[in-house]
Amino acid sequence: MNIAQFVQQSIGRWRSQRSGHNLAFSHFEEVRSTIDIVALDIEDPKVIQLCQSYSIDSAKAISPFRMSWEGESDWDDETLSGSTILVPIPDPDRPNRGKLLREKGYAETMAAIAEYRITDEGTFILDTKYDRAAAEERIWFATPNLRFRVSSIKTSEGTGVLTASFSSEIRSLSDKSSAKEAPESKVVPS
Amino acid sequence: MNIAQFVQQSIGRWRSQRSGHNLAFSHFEEVRSTIDIVALDIEDPKVIQLCQSYSIDSAKAISPFRMSWEGESDWDDETLSGSTILVPIPDPDRPNRGKLLREKGYAETMAAIAEYRITDEGTFILDTKYDRAAAEERIWFATPNLRFRVSSIKTSEGTGVLTASFSSEIRSLSDKSSAKEAPESKVVPS
Repeated sequence: MNIAQFVQQSIGRWRSQRSGHNLAFSHFEEVRSTIDIVALDIEDPKVIQLCQSYSIDSAKAISPFRMSWEGESDWDDETLSGSTILVPIPDPDRPNRGKLLREKGYAETMAAIAEYRITDEGTFILDTKYDRAAAEERIWFATPNLRFRVSSIKTSEGTGVLTASFSSEIRSLSDKSSAKEAPESKVVPS
Repeated sequence: MNIAQFVQQSIGRWRSQRSGHNLAFSHFEEVRSTIDIVALDIEDPKVIQLCQSYSIDSAKAISPFRMSWEGESDWDDETLSGSTILVPIPDPDRPNRGKLLREKGYAETMAAIAEYRITDEGTFILDTKYDRAAAEERIWFATPNLRFRVSSIKTSEGTGVLTASFSSEIRSLSDKSSAKEAPESKVVPS
């Protein structure tokens, strides 16, 4: 699987169950959310602008997309919502590796450099280095309509993992466009 | 990483946080447990007996171990506990692949054939085929003292995933033998 195929398979609306583990205190958090992943045009001004902000030629970008989410945690009553643009920049010299540009989130005070790779098994692994911490995200498809995602954050020395989370993301079957693409796949038995 | 290294790294006492996702009903389950993984001697009569029950020459086995667990779920007040013996049988023709023999669990009415493989990334993937369902388990180390484990069960046709779960397993630092092996690794910051 290459990055274009991975993004293509991710396009759609997803119903997500996320469990957060606070490893120091053995706490659980439960979040239910809806995630929309929408393909963007390579010529979209926001894509070009994001590439420019990283001083990268936008001609090197492929399969840019917007991800937005709206969810509710059992920890507070606030609705968690947001949206970001993501732009893969494949490495011309190393197959299935590259950078992933992302709009700066409100939680990030500095630009983050994210490196992705896709394993032979089809697992997308994203490593993001921050000033004092490093995040790893692993995403893979159990079926065409079910994604799993494991995220973890460790100290920049790499020895201490602070939090981990697991999401199971089911394609929303009311999303007709994707149901049409994979008509024989069901996430849950009828 | 080969199977002997993977088992060696798993030996010890682990404090586990497990989140179960029921995908059809969007339910969460939370389980806290303690897991003990103990190396067994290759000549242990129980190891030899388990190989015989699968008609496999026990000389082909390496790194057999016993896994026992004791935990509590937020779904009921019962203590979940059990113990099983696991015996890897490496495939002589395919590196980092093989079978994993397991004592029949009380939930299994028939022998299950489990096939493991270890990816280049060091992820241990175990596929178990039952009569009408298939289970996949992925285990990898985030640090020497932190294992992640994602399990999912799908229908035997492979299209419907019924449940998924995520465990973060922290090596219990009161287990002196393992702390001695990796003195500089901490799971949580001090």
